[in-house]
Amino acid sequence: MLRKTALFIGRFQPFHLGHLSVVKQALKENDFLIIGIGSAEDNYLPDNPFTAGERWEMITSALDQEKIFRDRYTIIPVRNINNYAIWVEHVSKILPCFQKVYTGSPLVKNLFENYGRNEVIEVQFKIPTSATEIRKLMLQGEEWETHVPRVVAQTIRGFKGVERLKIITNFYP
Amino acid sequence: MLRKTALFIGRFQPFHLGHLSVVKQALKENDFLIIGIGSAEDNYLPDNPFTAGERWEMITSALDQEKIFRDRYTIIPVRNINNYAIWVEHVSKILPCFQKVYTGSPLVKNLFENYGRNEVIEVQFKIPTSATEIRKLMLQGEEWETHVPRVVAQTIRGFKGVERLKIITNFYP
Amino acid sequence: MLRKTALFIGRFQPFHLGHLSVVKQALKENDFLIIGIGSAEDNYLPDNPFTAGERWEMITSALDQEKIFRDRYTIIPVRNINNYAIWVEHVSKILPCFQKVYTGSPLVKNLFENYGRNEVIEVQFKIPTSATEIRKLMLQGEEWETHVPRVVAQTIRGFKGVERLKIITNFYP
Amino acid sequence: MLRKTALFIGRFQPFHLGHLSVVKQALKENDFLIIGIGSAEDNYLPDNPFTAGERWEMITSALDQEKIFRDRYTIIPVRNINNYAIWVEHVSKILPCFQKVYTGSPLVKNLFENYGRNEVIEVQFKIPTSATEIRKLMLQGEEWETHVPRVVAQTIRGFKGVERLKIITNFYP
Amino acid sequence: MLRKTALFIGRFQPFHLGHLSVVKQALKENDFLIIGIGSAEDNYLPDNPFTAGERWEMITSALDQEKIFRDRYTIIPVRNINNYAIWVEHVSKILPCFQKVYTGSPLVKNLFENYGRNEVIEVQFKIPTSATEIRKLMLQGEEWETHVPRVVAQTIRGFKGVERLKIITNFYP
Amino acid sequence: MLRKTALFIGRFQPFHLGHLSVVKQALKENDFLIIGIGSAEDNYLPDNPFTAGERWEMITSALDQEKIFRDRYTIIPVRNINNYAIWVEHVSKILPCFQKVYTGSPLVKNLFENYGRNEVIEVQFKIPTSATEIRKLMLQGEEWETHVPRVVAQTIRGFKGVERLKIITNFYP
Repeated sequence: MLRKTALFIGRFQPFHLGHLSVVKQALKENDFLIIGIGSAEDNYLPDNPFTAGERWEMITSALDQEKIFRDRYTIIPVRNINNYAIWVEHVSKILPCFQKVYTGSPLVKNLFENYGRNEVIEVQFKIPTSATEIRKLMLQGEEWETHVPRVVAQTIRGFKGVERLKIITNFYP
Repeated sequence: MLRKTALFIGRFQPFHLGHLSVVKQALKENDFLIIGIGSAEDNYLPDNPFTAGERWEMITSALDQEKIFRDRYTIIPVRNINNYAIWVEHVSKILPCFQKVYTGSPLVKNLFENYGRNEVIEVQFKIPTSATEIRKLMLQGEEWETHVPRVVAQTIRGFKGVERLKIITNFYP
Repeated sequence: MLRKTALFIGRFQPFHLGHLSVVKQALKENDFLIIGIGSAEDNYLPDNPFTAGERWEMITSALDQEKIFRDRYTIIPVRNINNYAIWVEHVSKILPCFQKVYTGSPLVKNLFENYGRNEVIEVQFKIPTSATEIRKLMLQGEEWETHVPRVVAQTIRGFKGVERLKIITNFYP
Repeated sequence: MLRKTALFIGRFQPFHLGHLSVVKQALKENDFLIIGIGSAEDNYLPDNPFTAGERWEMITSALDQEKIFRDRYTIIPVRNINNYAIWVEHVSKILPCFQKVYTGSPLVKNLFENYGRNEVIEVQFKIPTSATEIRKLMLQGEEWETHVPRVVAQTIRGFKGVERLKIITNFYP
Repeated sequence: MLRKTALFIGRFQPFHLGHLSVVKQALKENDFLIIGIGSAEDNYLPDNPFTAGERWEMITSALDQEKIFRDRYTIIPVRNINNYAIWVEHVSKILPCFQKVYTGSPLVKNLFENYGRNEVIEVQFKIPTSATEIRKLMLQGEEWETHVPRVVAQTIRGFKGVERLKIITNFYP
Repeated sequence: MLRKTALFIGRFQPFHLGHLSVVKQALKENDFLIIGIGSAEDNYLPDNPFTAGERWEMITSALDQEKIFRDRYTIIPVRNINNYAIWVEHVSKILPCFQKVYTGSPLVKNLFENYGRNEVIEVQFKIPTSATEIRKLMLQGEEWETHVPRVVAQTIRGFKGVERLKIITNFYP
């Protein structure tokens, strides 16, 4: 029954206000959204501190709070493979069908343009703070919570995410 | 907000009427259901003929037809790992939290009982026909469609699933 | 400069007279042939007894003897991946460009037809003896050498291939 | 200080009286013995039901009982790789140095003879019952305990090993 | 018979005086020590220059010299997995049972605290020189041998470990 | 028939004039050359931007132009493995036999000297520009085309290689 399905793929380390605005935009323009959690099996690493399960919790709690109901989207973990030239096929075979791709990553955009059969939309996050910068703020002990949905900040505090990030960043200097 | 979440894990090769009755039972007894597609990266094999994406289509179309709405469940692919003794941890870290496990597989039951912290419910499929037997009927050219939801039979015919099964079964004698 | 390039993919366990006739046919119909050695990293297994290097030696010695020069073809090992639905992409990215695919395997044919952008030609081996049957003859101590090019039989005897096959077949009963 | 070191490699599913006699023989002929647990990451499979940790417990408890002290041997898990032609190198780089190899497997013997630089001794188990046959006795509910050291039987009963074997064997018919 | 078993896990690149003092402390407080060689399959890399076999030789020769007998400890290689959230389970299933964990790594400590069922003891190396700093001294041609047991320095010189470290560090600038 | 076979192994990211001069030297000193494309499954990465298939096209087009005929050499993709201590065996089993190794990499030289049975020749590229430096020139928008065979520059422009390199380098800062 659902006609227009889109994919929004990201690592969501963590899920922030820019990601939220993309979800809203994609749901305005499509009937159903697949949210792909990239690098799903990586965790406890400086660039990928949170597990796929923890990121699932962040995203659903944020969308619940926004009254975006679970019948409009699904969340699917996607593991990383080093052979990027076949990554588009890997993603496409493990996911349900989709026609459009939303992404903030020029690499993902380039891969889908070269190897996919989908329309690709590069999104500009409307806030100046990327996930990389949020992790830096966490490490430096500065204010980071205003850049993520309130309930995401609670979730991260709940499993002591900032302490974890500091430990693993010291471990890989 | 959702209090009781359960996991129903299977390979769904294909999704049949027994699976459907478990989904209904689990949704009566819980608030939210995670449907885990096992061996998600295996496909075009005699025991695993269909891709994860194809199985996703089977399940959602069957549940749509039953008026089971997508805000009650989510579908997540889970890849196989040979080291079963750590499989429960692997599954638990990639999925959102759940308290109960529904399964028709004695192995999955045994693993969760030995290594998990969840309540495990072994389900008895109410029809006498397992997925293994349905694939046998397909191979022998006998009636198999009555054992799956009508829309699943359509989906399988749509991508020529029976022809595929015959080809790959001849290939691995 | 070479215009028409074809791919002939097989496991060549061992390279037999049927394979040789396909190489000849493909070189009549094309300018250049890529011979892909499938399951290249499998060896010392009942269905894959010989290493990729040993199979390379079989093929080149057979083609040398037939005066098929090495500027007409190249041999490339292709490792197996279990996720067949992305196998066509995997093969295509690791190999040079080709337009046609020759194969004796209905599975390979089906995969390229579903996922590739190439013309696929299913070849019928003109001899009644497949590689599977040649390995059976080897195991039963019967005449197998007439089914392979003479120099291939020499190569196999040189590294005691039949003895190896018997050892590994007993090991996996 | 230790001059003569040997390797005894097996899967030990389970560790039986034949294995024990090889350990004794090897320790008579050498100063130190490395006991390699093969297929260490495989478990909960019909041919590999027990984890590496469980097999470690079987072996040390049996040797403790025999007053074979732990300064005469070490136990090291070795994971399986499908590419057998490089398996000897894989094993040799992960283990301490050794000069002799004891094995009951013709495949392991063949691999070390082709690719290793060690003396290889093929051992004949002095009892007529292999690990494969012991697992069959377990499945059929027949007497199996007389074929293993008494303390190994206790260990297996302790973690309900026979029940596990029955479950996983039904799962992979 | 052995009651208290501990695990000391590290990469031992190389095994130094700080590691030695932890082994001594752990053996005072426990009956038996499992020494886990982390990242066992990594080698010839700037942070992991030595093979598992070479590290095994370093450790046993150092402990032999200290009259710490082999019946008090065992050394087991543990390969790295990127999915740290299941690493504790991976380690626990491949090793014999243990109750306490000694580690100098905050990450290992954090992982066992979050996911393990063991007591975790974070050790402070009593010397100011870590393995990382020893490898730096090696690269800069400065005095490093006083930071490791004498016999370890001999072992490293024996296989030209410093030359190797220089080669691989130039290769990955 | 061919007596002297050599291996020249490199990543060829991209294939440049220094590589070309090694091929010429090796073909003067040997009858046949195996050109191994290292890290064959890595691509779309800052240090490995081009796929194995693209590198195959670069090499053959350059050698075609130089009138080096395809019966003098073969090109074989070799995938990377992290366990370098067994890499020489891995390479040797997947390739046809060779007696000499040409390499510009001190690590490859060291590995073959320690673990191989071949003569190793370390080549000094006669031009001052390595592949690493060519990729830097590409990124900085400077003249890079004079460092590669003319037809290689055309090939890279054909698939927009410089644009790709810029995208992936920004992605991994």
